[in-house]
Amino acid sequence: MAKNSFPLPKVYGLLEPGPVVLVTTAGKDGANIMTQSWHTMIEFEPPLVGCVISNRNHSFDILKATKECVINIPTVELAEKVVGCGNTSGRNIDKFKHFGLTPVAASCVQAPLIDECYASLECKVVDGKMVTRYNFFILEVLKAWIDPSMKHPRTIHHLGKGAFMVAGKTIKLPSRMK
Amino acid sequence: MAKNSFPLPKVYGLLEPGPVVLVTTAGKDGANIMTQSWHTMIEFEPPLVGCVISNRNHSFDILKATKECVINIPTVELAEKVVGCGNTSGRNIDKFKHFGLTPVAASCVQAPLIDECYASLECKVVDGKMVTRYNFFILEVLKAWIDPSMKHPRTIHHLGKGAFMVAGKTIKLPSRMK
Repeated sequence: MAKNSFPLPKVYGLLEPGPVVLVTTAGKDGANIMTQSWHTMIEFEPPLVGCVISNRNHSFDILKATKECVINIPTVELAEKVVGCGNTSGRNIDKFKHFGLTPVAASCVQAPLIDECYASLECKVVDGKMVTRYNFFILEVLKAWIDPSMKHPRTIHHLGKGAFMVAGKTIKLPSRMK
Repeated sequence: MAKNSFPLPKVYGLLEPGPVVLVTTAGKDGANIMTQSWHTMIEFEPPLVGCVISNRNHSFDILKATKECVINIPTVELAEKVVGCGNTSGRNIDKFKHFGLTPVAASCVQAPLIDECYASLECKVVDGKMVTRYNFFILEVLKAWIDPSMKHPRTIHHLGKGAFMVAGKTIKLPSRMK
């Protein structure tokens, strides 16, 4: 999927609606993918993202060691692979191979982008003080990529236990909010 | 709107999809409402929510002083009022009166529920260590309420600058994820 560089001050608009994301990391035993929904914007610019990665997950150890990851945003077409990545562990399988996802080299971090996702955010950990207590990492987005042809991405939003809300129509109201 | 008590272990399913919320607080000059999208689940049980409330907002001072708030979840029918609450400040107006929203007494906190919202989460601040640096509050949900008749709430999800994605259809996939 051909992607353009995406302006960092606009990144909040990608994560603020709360999509399920696929977090990629690259450890010494290869790259991994983790399905994740517990994230929030923390700051507009530079864009900071707060993200819970449980210490029960393989990705936790890699992220803690490498301090780098990529947040990839899938659309509904990838829903089965998203759930597949959530049901399995990178300790046992290579999720890229197993689910037929394509790693693409990032520009600022070792972790790969997922080619099939419509947007990808290259991140580094900038604050790990909340990791021990809450598994909560503060990430700075260093570089963002987006498929410019995707005008209305049908992102998926986890409602629990495999139920997902699929992004519906967009409305516009006169707002002074950023 | 008649609401039932909602089990705390299920609260994550309300916030995980990333809806815009209306955070209510009660200060010495009365109750206030703030439109907010920067929140994430932090823990399932007891449910912990991380929430950015900017120190530029009137609600910041009240939340910091009282350590209590309610997270109310609106649906698309309230979109204009949601934007209105985001465009105005509680320093100048009584938002409940101005936007015709109805405060209802909560059971565990002084901040009111918003009757017109389909779900409300009574919260207290349990960790303020990230407030100075990130305006980030860790809240514990003490009590949750939901309108049991609302099977497919059309929540709204902020895309930036007054554009909102409206919750679309729900899909279900075989998942082992909580």
